[in-house]
Amino acid sequence: MEHKVIGMLGCGNVGSGVYNLLKDMAEDIAHREKLSIHVKKILVRDITKQREGIPAELLTTSAQDILEDEEITLVIECMGGEEPATTLMAEALKRGKTVVTANKMAIALNWHILHNAAIEGGSGLQFEASVCGAVPVIRVLNNSMQANRVTQVMGIVNGTTNYILSKMTDEMLPYSEVLAEAQALGLAEPDPASDVGGFDAAYKLSILSSLAFHARVPYDKVYREGIENVQVQDIAAGKDLGYRLKLLAIGKREGDVVDVRVHPVFVPDNHPLASVGGAFNAVFLTGNACGDMMLYGRGAGSMPTAGAILSDVIYALTQPEPKHPSFENKNTLHPSLSVTDNWQCGFYLRFSAMNRPGVLGHITTKLGQHGVSISSILQRKAEGEGDVPVIVITHRAYEKDVQAALKEIDPAIARVGSALRVEGIE
Amino acid sequence: MEHKVIGMLGCGNVGSGVYNLLKDMAEDIAHREKLSIHVKKILVRDITKQREGIPAELLTTSAQDILEDEEITLVIECMGGEEPATTLMAEALKRGKTVVTANKMAIALNWHILHNAAIEGGSGLQFEASVCGAVPVIRVLNNSMQANRVTQVMGIVNGTTNYILSKMTDEMLPYSEVLAEAQALGLAEPDPASDVGGFDAAYKLSILSSLAFHARVPYDKVYREGIENVQVQDIAAGKDLGYRLKLLAIGKREGDVVDVRVHPVFVPDNHPLASVGGAFNAVFLTGNACGDMMLYGRGAGSMPTAGAILSDVIYALTQPEPKHPSFENKNTLHPSLSVTDNWQCGFYLRFSAMNRPGVLGHITTKLGQHGVSISSILQRKAEGEGDVPVIVITHRAYEKDVQAALKEIDPAIARVGSALRVEGIE
Repeated sequence: MEHKVIGMLGCGNVGSGVYNLLKDMAEDIAHREKLSIHVKKILVRDITKQREGIPAELLTTSAQDILEDEEITLVIECMGGEEPATTLMAEALKRGKTVVTANKMAIALNWHILHNAAIEGGSGLQFEASVCGAVPVIRVLNNSMQANRVTQVMGIVNGTTNYILSKMTDEMLPYSEVLAEAQALGLAEPDPASDVGGFDAAYKLSILSSLAFHARVPYDKVYREGIENVQVQDIAAGKDLGYRLKLLAIGKREGDVVDVRVHPVFVPDNHPLASVGGAFNAVFLTGNACGDMMLYGRGAGSMPTAGAILSDVIYALTQPEPKHPSFENKNTLHPSLSVTDNWQCGFYLRFSAMNRPGVLGHITTKLGQHGVSISSILQRKAEGEGDVPVIVITHRAYEKDVQAALKEIDPAIARVGSALRVEGIE
Repeated sequence: MEHKVIGMLGCGNVGSGVYNLLKDMAEDIAHREKLSIHVKKILVRDITKQREGIPAELLTTSAQDILEDEEITLVIECMGGEEPATTLMAEALKRGKTVVTANKMAIALNWHILHNAAIEGGSGLQFEASVCGAVPVIRVLNNSMQANRVTQVMGIVNGTTNYILSKMTDEMLPYSEVLAEAQALGLAEPDPASDVGGFDAAYKLSILSSLAFHARVPYDKVYREGIENVQVQDIAAGKDLGYRLKLLAIGKREGDVVDVRVHPVFVPDNHPLASVGGAFNAVFLTGNACGDMMLYGRGAGSMPTAGAILSDVIYALTQPEPKHPSFENKNTLHPSLSVTDNWQCGFYLRFSAMNRPGVLGHITTKLGQHGVSISSILQRKAEGEGDVPVIVITHRAYEKDVQAALKEIDPAIARVGSALRVEGIE
């Protein structure tokens, strides 16, 4: 039996979960892994706050109590946020302590600092819980995809937005109403911008695509659109045509050109990502050997996240040498890669068209002139005297060609109501 | 750069795939893993056969050329079948060579021999490709679920039966017709018994449940029913009620009691397993920390299997110490476990009932007397003068209670046409 002494930075929802799960699983872990793990100190902001199941004598408000304690060989960081988490983790790594973190922001933004600190200290750094909670996508990318060139990752990596879009789809409710309800249920933050604006997903995509492509793809290269402007009429029209709207984090690689983007996107009903509902997360991967693959599970919550963190802790403590999942030691785009903003995908285009002959001809001619070919058209019956909604689904086309075509469509003939992207099609 | 010399046992579809993938990926593997892998010898039965991309000078018909070559530190086994694969792998392991295999039969039936040989030789043994091809379920169970007590694994682990059932469901064709077509397409063997009888799935379930429950569950403890008697009218009726029929490999644990079984089973349309179509595989897992999780991907085929094998090779060669995923060193049921044949699940029951009052009363009374409660009933319109089909879906009930109730239903009133199980319900 090996005895290991660890420290924790932070003891909120996730931190308490880690402590309590470790207690619950102690006997199993001792039996299976011949490992006994003892939490010596936990850094908190407010030492007087009651925390279910956490002995008060473990709590400290001084990070030095953990960083300077040589008995502590591993530190779990679950404070969240960029700072002071990054500085504390870097300090622990430089002192030779292995760090396990769920902090996507610190990993995505400050990888160079943490990686350098780990090299300096000869320490391990694990961050499975930083992307998709319980879904073991980071270990799979590192330990199961070594014989693949990954060409594509597409993930539902944010539970809040997936909950909102699922609910809008199932109940045909407008965005603002569903958001308010999610906030009341605690499923969305009082300031929801990080989730609904796609920032959280962009952090995770930076990590996922860096690992999948074995080359650093920094956060600031990720194109980002949130779900704030999604209209329920488009969800309804997509549904009629056999598509579901999801906020996807998409990374694709063709040769040394990648596109990395977070935006709402329609996927066909029969695509494995389409049925990932509510607060679940999933990552759909494509590799040259494995073909299509998907990992599905709980993306957040105290226990799923704690389980992923503890799995990292056990993994790190049972490795003979400290290591960490690696992308190149830079905070800038890997020199072998270039990022394109002219990606290819399908498009869903909704127009408000004049109710007169020649309108469809005008739209299809303009699209055709830019090489955009059409997969299906749905012209709905006019309600009363007003404009007619026309919905066009295109085949795969270049982003810039579609944008150029849309600019040339005469708004007096057909006004562009929505332009959404479509993935998972040929 | 580390140079490693390996040998291969077998060079069929999978073996050729491994060799060609290794060649294709050599540069990537060298760059990413600092590893250069050289295949020195390949054991084949017929040395004169042409094999695409395989240099003839590597081929040998003598296993000793590989086993006795001390330069070869790792052996890939892709002959399949119990023997001579088991004997050759054991011999290699005893000589200190790491073995990577896709052989579910050898692992499920002869674990004790291989495990003992690995202990004797201080060798590693990896078998990711033995279950679900490219789906990394074995590494996930071992390296990502350490902080979980797994209570359930449910897998679509056989592509042939999933193809047949998917096709029967989509096109409402009878079993025999779809089987013949699958055989013509090479998707089913000329003698299909191993697949359609559930034997292949039972081998895989023995491996999966032994790993998931950290305790040996031998193959002969797995209850097994194939798909040979599945009737398209039941698939149709289930579809109307919102269920899809799958051949599942199911392992559940409650305390120290497990049930392990392979049989056709209905799952609700919205269950993640329901939409796993065609030749794809998936494993649905439940753990105390992670909650529900699913891994989905290609379960067979030259490249997906080769990718899993090569991932094991790289994993084994980059581990500082040889190891292998472990279940207890026995070929009998782990002493802490007992296997029950009185599991709980839902049931789909189809009766041919007389077209007269009191029939439903008779059926529901008999079920009720055995504690079986009913979730829904569908009585179809009689066609002509004959009997009326009545379909009953029960809530979760004990297998033996349902069987006892069915025996007491008077066949003169209602004859039991089909009794199928239902999973994924409350």
